[in-house]
Amino acid sequence: MSTPPSLHALIAALKTLPGIGPKSAQRMAFHLMQRDQKGAADLATALNNALGKLKHCSLCNTFAEVDLCDVCSDEKRQHNLLCVVEMPTDLMMLEQTLAFHGLYFVLMGRLSPLDGIGPNDIALQRLLERASDGVVEEVILATNFTTEGEATAHYLAEMLRARGLKVSRIARGMPVGGELEHVDAGTLAQAMLERRSV
Amino acid sequence: MSTPPSLHALIAALKTLPGIGPKSAQRMAFHLMQRDQKGAADLATALNNALGKLKHCSLCNTFAEVDLCDVCSDEKRQHNLLCVVEMPTDLMMLEQTLAFHGLYFVLMGRLSPLDGIGPNDIALQRLLERASDGVVEEVILATNFTTEGEATAHYLAEMLRARGLKVSRIARGMPVGGELEHVDAGTLAQAMLERRSV
Repeated sequence: MSTPPSLHALIAALKTLPGIGPKSAQRMAFHLMQRDQKGAADLATALNNALGKLKHCSLCNTFAEVDLCDVCSDEKRQHNLLCVVEMPTDLMMLEQTLAFHGLYFVLMGRLSPLDGIGPNDIALQRLLERASDGVVEEVILATNFTTEGEATAHYLAEMLRARGLKVSRIARGMPVGGELEHVDAGTLAQAMLERRSV
Repeated sequence: MSTPPSLHALIAALKTLPGIGPKSAQRMAFHLMQRDQKGAADLATALNNALGKLKHCSLCNTFAEVDLCDVCSDEKRQHNLLCVVEMPTDLMMLEQTLAFHGLYFVLMGRLSPLDGIGPNDIALQRLLERASDGVVEEVILATNFTTEGEATAHYLAEMLRARGLKVSRIARGMPVGGELEHVDAGTLAQAMLERRSV
């Protein structure tokens, strides 16, 4: 039996979701059509809604429905600290720590020459303008500790230092609760190199 | 930072998919909005399309976009054999075996008194009418070997036998390539009880 075209198309569309293979996509499609048609309609509405309403904060570049996001419009934040992250998810993770009270800038990507993503493909120019507003004193680079994230941090550090800004990088080292026996050698080596006096 | 409402709604809608928890839903939502807006639009279209076009085959009750599905409209199938399954997925699994050339009937559910699903909530009446068309000689019960599936099979067997039809159940036993050492005790016990002379 051939699958009806609209069902086949639904399975194919679900398969493009991250972490969803052909089997899961089929299970989801049947679940939605057999047992949860309301859920399917809700999901379609939510997708179209998000596509229509979500734009980027004019100051920090994260997702927002309004011109200025909650963080940027909060008067109580420290306006002299600017934390640079790759993605809105990273911003949310940092906010959950409650350890940072400055402002953010979301690059919406990272430098990745192998994938053809150069300085013009991320919001680099906007970051430089944002950081040179005369209020920002320190830029904290919180890109990922992947090859691309590190390269992005190095590149940004050079550009930002050339503009007379203080630039810092979030620390590498042992995770909280981590045991030396179970941590990878690279992390342990960094923790040793970047040891601090107590 | 509070998530924008439309993004929050999208995450909530994705979370209703089977097997998707809060973390995965968030990852999917960000992926769709950050990197794959076309994928998001395609998925919304596919959902609405499927909701609009998919209906049930008038003969076997499976999903189809037309009145009669591919299997039911195939002249070459054996019209005297009717295989009863719970769900369209089950039908597709059986079709992939290429071992059955009769027709199907999809219950779209199973008897499950605990969940309040009685004989009137599955397509039982339609099955009885379908099986009594004078052409069907044998009804093969291929509901799952779960408690509910077994109960459904017992119930159906009684109803169908009362109408003078030959009723059979697909076999239980060792899986192909299965080793006695690794099979569960229940399956092995059934394989012993239902042994056949060779």
